[in-house]
Amino acid sequence: MQRMNIGIIGATGYAGAELTRILLGHPQTAELHLSSVSFEGEALETVYPNFLGNTKKIVGGLKKAEDAIEASDVVFASLPHGVGEDFAKTCVEKGKPFIDLSADFRFGADERTFAAWYGAGYRHPELRRRSVYGLPELNRDAIRRLADSGPVIIGNPGCYPTAAILGAMPALARGLAGDGAIIVDAASGVTGGGREPARAYHYPECADNVSPYKVGCHRHTPEISRAFADIRGVFRPVIFTPHLAPVNRGILATIYIPLADARAQPPAFSPKETAPRPPSKEIAAQAEALHAVYAEFYKDEPFVRVLPFGAAASTNRVRQSNYCDISAHVDQSGSTLIIASAIDNMVKGAAGQAVQNMNIIFGFEENAGLAAIPALF
Amino acid sequence: MQRMNIGIIGATGYAGAELTRILLGHPQTAELHLSSVSFEGEALETVYPNFLGNTKKIVGGLKKAEDAIEASDVVFASLPHGVGEDFAKTCVEKGKPFIDLSADFRFGADERTFAAWYGAGYRHPELRRRSVYGLPELNRDAIRRLADSGPVIIGNPGCYPTAAILGAMPALARGLAGDGAIIVDAASGVTGGGREPARAYHYPECADNVSPYKVGCHRHTPEISRAFADIRGVFRPVIFTPHLAPVNRGILATIYIPLADARAQPPAFSPKETAPRPPSKEIAAQAEALHAVYAEFYKDEPFVRVLPFGAAASTNRVRQSNYCDISAHVDQSGSTLIIASAIDNMVKGAAGQAVQNMNIIFGFEENAGLAAIPALF
Amino acid sequence: MQRMNIGIIGATGYAGAELTRILLGHPQTAELHLSSVSFEGEALETVYPNFLGNTKKIVGGLKKAEDAIEASDVVFASLPHGVGEDFAKTCVEKGKPFIDLSADFRFGADERTFAAWYGAGYRHPELRRRSVYGLPELNRDAIRRLADSGPVIIGNPGCYPTAAILGAMPALARGLAGDGAIIVDAASGVTGGGREPARAYHYPECADNVSPYKVGCHRHTPEISRAFADIRGVFRPVIFTPHLAPVNRGILATIYIPLADARAQPPAFSPKETAPRPPSKEIAAQAEALHAVYAEFYKDEPFVRVLPFGAAASTNRVRQSNYCDISAHVDQSGSTLIIASAIDNMVKGAAGQAVQNMNIIFGFEENAGLAAIPALF
Amino acid sequence: MQRMNIGIIGATGYAGAELTRILLGHPQTAELHLSSVSFEGEALETVYPNFLGNTKKIVGGLKKAEDAIEASDVVFASLPHGVGEDFAKTCVEKGKPFIDLSADFRFGADERTFAAWYGAGYRHPELRRRSVYGLPELNRDAIRRLADSGPVIIGNPGCYPTAAILGAMPALARGLAGDGAIIVDAASGVTGGGREPARAYHYPECADNVSPYKVGCHRHTPEISRAFADIRGVFRPVIFTPHLAPVNRGILATIYIPLADARAQPPAFSPKETAPRPPSKEIAAQAEALHAVYAEFYKDEPFVRVLPFGAAASTNRVRQSNYCDISAHVDQSGSTLIIASAIDNMVKGAAGQAVQNMNIIFGFEENAGLAAIPALF
Repeated sequence: MQRMNIGIIGATGYAGAELTRILLGHPQTAELHLSSVSFEGEALETVYPNFLGNTKKIVGGLKKAEDAIEASDVVFASLPHGVGEDFAKTCVEKGKPFIDLSADFRFGADERTFAAWYGAGYRHPELRRRSVYGLPELNRDAIRRLADSGPVIIGNPGCYPTAAILGAMPALARGLAGDGAIIVDAASGVTGGGREPARAYHYPECADNVSPYKVGCHRHTPEISRAFADIRGVFRPVIFTPHLAPVNRGILATIYIPLADARAQPPAFSPKETAPRPPSKEIAAQAEALHAVYAEFYKDEPFVRVLPFGAAASTNRVRQSNYCDISAHVDQSGSTLIIASAIDNMVKGAAGQAVQNMNIIFGFEENAGLAAIPALF
Repeated sequence: MQRMNIGIIGATGYAGAELTRILLGHPQTAELHLSSVSFEGEALETVYPNFLGNTKKIVGGLKKAEDAIEASDVVFASLPHGVGEDFAKTCVEKGKPFIDLSADFRFGADERTFAAWYGAGYRHPELRRRSVYGLPELNRDAIRRLADSGPVIIGNPGCYPTAAILGAMPALARGLAGDGAIIVDAASGVTGGGREPARAYHYPECADNVSPYKVGCHRHTPEISRAFADIRGVFRPVIFTPHLAPVNRGILATIYIPLADARAQPPAFSPKETAPRPPSKEIAAQAEALHAVYAEFYKDEPFVRVLPFGAAASTNRVRQSNYCDISAHVDQSGSTLIIASAIDNMVKGAAGQAVQNMNIIFGFEENAGLAAIPALF
Repeated sequence: MQRMNIGIIGATGYAGAELTRILLGHPQTAELHLSSVSFEGEALETVYPNFLGNTKKIVGGLKKAEDAIEASDVVFASLPHGVGEDFAKTCVEKGKPFIDLSADFRFGADERTFAAWYGAGYRHPELRRRSVYGLPELNRDAIRRLADSGPVIIGNPGCYPTAAILGAMPALARGLAGDGAIIVDAASGVTGGGREPARAYHYPECADNVSPYKVGCHRHTPEISRAFADIRGVFRPVIFTPHLAPVNRGILATIYIPLADARAQPPAFSPKETAPRPPSKEIAAQAEALHAVYAEFYKDEPFVRVLPFGAAASTNRVRQSNYCDISAHVDQSGSTLIIASAIDNMVKGAAGQAVQNMNIIFGFEENAGLAAIPALF
Repeated sequence: MQRMNIGIIGATGYAGAELTRILLGHPQTAELHLSSVSFEGEALETVYPNFLGNTKKIVGGLKKAEDAIEASDVVFASLPHGVGEDFAKTCVEKGKPFIDLSADFRFGADERTFAAWYGAGYRHPELRRRSVYGLPELNRDAIRRLADSGPVIIGNPGCYPTAAILGAMPALARGLAGDGAIIVDAASGVTGGGREPARAYHYPECADNVSPYKVGCHRHTPEISRAFADIRGVFRPVIFTPHLAPVNRGILATIYIPLADARAQPPAFSPKETAPRPPSKEIAAQAEALHAVYAEFYKDEPFVRVLPFGAAASTNRVRQSNYCDISAHVDQSGSTLIIASAIDNMVKGAAGQAVQNMNIIFGFEENAGLAAIPALF
C-alpha cells in the first residue's frame, strides 16, 4: 500500500510532538518532515529526549514550514490560531491535504462567529470551500467526499468539543433531548495548556488542585454549539465550563441533557417533603433503555466505546489511546440524561483524531497507527 | 475561659484523625478522650505516626466509646451511618452536646427520606427534637437556641452538601434563581473515600484519573435538596454528580442555577447562525452585579470568602483551612448563574465544620482552633 | 513468519495485564490463553475495562492454568513467588518455553540464597538446569543457547535489579569499579506494589509522599549482588535502598560506584578548609570519558539508551516503553561514578523484558511488540 | 510578652510567602512589613489569593525593602544569592537581627568556597563576624551568644543541608562513622524550585516523573560538607545527589554512613556464593543499638523526631510542620548506617527554621508559631 511523506508544521508543541510519535508508528509513513519556528535546525530529540533512537523516518532536522510542505504528500499543522492559513493555501494550491489542529477551519463559512470569539477574521475566506469539520463520527462521509474531489482542509476539532459532541450526539440525533440548555461540565489534564511554562501550569500551583477557568467565555463553546446544531438542525443553548485537573492527559466531560420524554416520577414523597426519592425501578429501566440507544448508535464506530451499563467513563482507561469512552446515566427523577465522555485530550482530542482524518482521506484502515490499547495505569 | 474535655468516637477514621488534629490545637481543649473500635488500647501515634510528639492532651490510649463519653463535656462521633444513635441518646441523657459527622441527624424528622436513601429507619426518632442540621451559615441561630435550651445534637453536614449549599444559598435566598433544576457537578479528593484501602482508592487506579461515580444516585442528593428547600421554602429539583479527582483534599462544586431574570441577549448572531455570541458588556455587567449580591450576602461570615470579581475558586487555596471560597460567573447568554465553590472536604466538609459547631454551641470565638491560613502549595 | 499461541498464567495481576497488553499488539501473537485463579470464567475486560474492544485474540475467558498451558506454544507466568514451579515442570515436560516473572528461577543453582531470602527452598531443584537469568543485555547468548537445546525456563529479572544491573554493568565489565560497596538508591512507582489495595498504596497515604521501605532487607539485594558477581567474577558488597514515589510507573536507580582510577583532585582548597571544590575541568573530562565508555558499551543494544553527555535519566522519558535510559556522572572530587538508570518498572522491569526474552527464544526481531515510543507526558 | 514588628524582604517568592503565613500565626507578631521588587505597591492577596481575609497584621501593601527594614524590629530576607548583603549591613548598623534565607551567610569566613560555588565573592566580608550558620540543633548556643552580644545575622541553612546534617549529626558526633565518603541521596518536592514557571517545573514534565539533577555539582554539597566538618572537626568527603520528585513539599534524604564498627558478618554464605545473606539477628541488634543512639541524641530537641525502631521516615508525616523525622537502619551486612531524614523543604528547610532562629534570638518559646501538627494527608 501507498507510503506517504508527511509534514508536520509546529512539530515541537505538545500536539505536534504527539503527532510525530503517532506517525512514527504509522504503517503508511515513509518520511516525516518536521517544522518548528522555535527550534529550526535542531534535531527533534534535542527538544524531546523521549524520541531518542526513534528518528530514522525523520528526514533532516527541524526545518522551515515551506520546506516541510514541499517534501510532503500531506501536511499537519499545529500552530496558534490565525497563523496557518497561508500554509493551508499553499497546500491546496499544490493539491496536498492540510490537516489543521488550530481553530482556523472549525467554523466553515461562519466567519462572524470565528471573528467574535477569536478576535480576527479569516485571511483567506475562500479556503472554507475546501474545508470540513473533522469529527469523523459526525462528518466521515463529508470528509471522504471532499477528499475525493480535490485537496481537502480538515478543521480538526478541539479537545473539549470532541468529548462533548461525541457524548451528546446520540441523544440529539435520536431525538432524546428536550428543550433547554445542554450543560457541558468538563475537566482537562494539564497538557491541554501546551508546552510553554506558565503560572497556571506550574507544578506547585496546579498539583493537588481542581479549578474552573474561563467560565462562560471559553472559545470551545461556539464550536460545541455549532456541532449540536449540525446534528439536529436547530440551535440549542450550550453552557460549557472547563476545569483544570491534576492529570497529564485526559478530558472528562459530564453532559446534562434535558430529556424530551422525562419520566413522571413524583420528585419527592409528598408535597410536604423536600427531598427527592432515590431512583425507582422505572428510572433504572429508563436509564438502561437510554444506554441501549447509545450502544446501538455507536456499535460500528472503531473509536467510541459505550461502556457496559452501570460502568462510568474514566480518563485513565483511554490514556494514550484514540478511544472516546461513554457512559449513559439518568438523574434520580428521570428528567435529565447525564453522559460521561472520556478521551485522551492529546490523542482523540488532537493528534490521534488528526491521524484518523488522514486515514479517512487516504482510505487507510481507520485505526492505522492508532491501535494502541490503553494501559489503565 | 472554659476549657473542655472532649470525646471523639471513631477517632481513627480520616475525619476522626482530622478532628483530633484540629482539637489538639484548639485553645479550649483541656483533655481529649479518643475512642476506636479497631484500635482499642493502642496509642494514636501507632495508627497515625504524624501525631508523634503531640499527644500530651490525649488521655490514655484509644478507649471504649462509653469511657470516652463518660470523661467528656462534649462528644464528636465519626462513625458509619446508623451506628451512633445510641451514643447520641446517652449524651442527651447526660446533658452533653453530641456532634455527629454521620448522616444520622441530617434529615431531622424526615425519616422517610433518610430510610429511602440509607436503607434503614431511625433507632431513636425522638432524638430529632434535639437535633439540628449543623451548617452554621444556614442555621447558626437555630444551633445556638437549641444549645441554650439543653443538650443539642448536631447533624454535621456532608462534604458535598456543604460546598453545594454555601454555593447556592445567596442565589436562593435573594430570589435570583428561576425555575428548573439546579445542577451540582462536583469533584472530590480521595480522602473523601476514607481510610480503608479499596480498589477505587488504590494509587495506580485513581492517580492521573478523573471519573464520575454514583451518577444519579448519590446519598448527598437529598441532603442538598432539603437544604435548598429550607432556604427558599419550596422544593427544587436537584441533579448532583460527584467525581473523584486525584487530589488528597478538596471539593470543587460547580453549580448551575437558572436565573429568574435571564438577560435578553439573542443567543446567536442571527437565526441562521448556530453558535452563541461571546459574552456582551451587558452580560459582563450582569455577572458583576450577581457577584456583588454574593459578596454582600457573605460579608460577615468568617469562613466564606467570595473571591474578587474575575477570580475562580480553587481547591488549593482552601487546603487545610475551614474556608469555603466562592466565585460567581454567568454563561455567555446570561441565562444561568454558574457558581464555583471550593472547600477542604476534611475541614469545612467534615472536622472543621464540626469544631465550628462546637464553638457556636459553647459561645467560643467561631474560628477558635480554625485560624489556619491555607498555604496554596 | 511463525505465529504463536501464548499462555499467560496470572493474567490479572498488574504484570499479567501488562503482558496481555503488549502481547495483544505483538505481530507474532496468534491466540492468547489467559489464566487467573481470582477471576476464572470471567472476561478480561470485566476486570480491566481498558481492554474493551481489543480482545479478539484472547480465546475464551480467564481459564485454568492447565488449560492455558495446554493451548499454548509458550507460557508466561506472573505468580507469587513459590507458586509456579509445577507449571514450569509441566512446560518443560511438554517442551514449551516458560517465562517466569517471579523470583523462583532468578537464583539458578544457588538454592541456599533463594531459601534464605524467600523463606522456602525449591520444589523442583532440577529445573534449574533448564533455567537462565533473563536479562538479555547480560545473558542473551546463554538464553539463545539454552533455548536452542530444548525447553528453556526464563527467570525474568526483578524490576529494581534490571535498572541496577544495566546501570552498573559497563563499569563492572570494563574494570572501572574499584573496591568498596556499590550503593543502589532507587525509587519505584506504585504499580510495583501490585493490584491488591493496601494501606501503603492507598492514594491519600502515598500521594505527595516519598519514603524508603525495607531498608537493608529487600529481596532484590541478593539478585543484584549475584548479577554483579556474574559480570565481574567476584563478589562485591551491595547496599540497596528502595523508595516509593508517587508515580504510577517507573524506577529511577541512582548507583554509586567507587572508581578504581579516582582522580587526584584535592578535595578541598586547603587542609584548613572544610568544603570541597566544585568539579574542575579535569573532573569534567573524566566524567565525559566515563560517559563515552558507557555509550560505547551499549551502542548495539536496542533497549538501552545512554543519554547525551550532560543529560540525566528521567522516568517519564521511558514510560510505557522497554527502554532503559542511562546517564553517567561523577562526584565533584572524581572519586565515584554516579549512574542514573531509568526504566518503566512494568515494561523493561517486568512484562516488556519477558516479551524481549520470548523474542530472543524464538528468533523474532528483539523489539517485536516492543516498539512503542515513550510519550514524555 | 514582647510583640515584634517583622520585615520580610522578598515576600512574594515561595519561601517569603511561607514566612508570611507562619509569622501571621506567630503569637509575638505585632505588624508585618512585606517587601517585593516584583509586586511593589500591590496587596499580598493579589499575588497569593490564599491569604484573603488574613492580612490584618500586614501594614500597607508590598513596599520597598528599605521601608520594610525601617519599620521592623527584625528582618527576614528571602532573596537570590548575592542580593541581600547591603540589607544585612543596614540591619546590623541599625541593630536589627537579619535572618537570611539565601546562601550569602552560610559559609562564614570561608569566602573562597562560597566564591568558587556561587560565582562571586562577598560584598561585605566583615559582616561574617556577626553571622552564624543557623541550624539550631547544631549551633543553638552560638546563635544565642551572638544575639546577646549585638545584632546577629543568621545564615539560614539550605533545605537539603538541613535534612542531611540532622540525619548525619548523631553518627558523626558520637563517633559512629568510619572513614570514607558519606553519600547523601535526596529527593525534593517541586516547591524547592521556587515560584517562577520553568520547563523543569512545568506540570506535564515533572508530574509522574523522578529524575536527578545537578549530579556532582549542586551548591548544597559544600554546605553539607562544612557542617559535617564542624560536627566532627575533620573534613569528610561528601557525595550529594539531588532528585526532583512529584510532590509539592518535602525532602527525603537517604544518607549512607560507613560504620567505624562494622559487624563481622561474612557477607555471603561461602566464598563460592555470590549473594549476601539476609540480615542476621546480630545485625538487627546492631541496628537497634544505632537507633538508640539516635533517639538519645535528639531526645530534647523539639523538632527532631527519631521514629520508633522499625518505622521509616516519610515526607507526608512532616508536611506543613517544622519537624525533621529520622529513621535509622543498617544494610544487611552491618557495614553501613542508612539514615532516612524527612523534612518539609518550605518549613524546616526554609521558613520554619528561619522562624525557629528568630525564636531563639529573642528568647521566645522555640516552637512559637511552629506548633502545627502535620496532617498525614
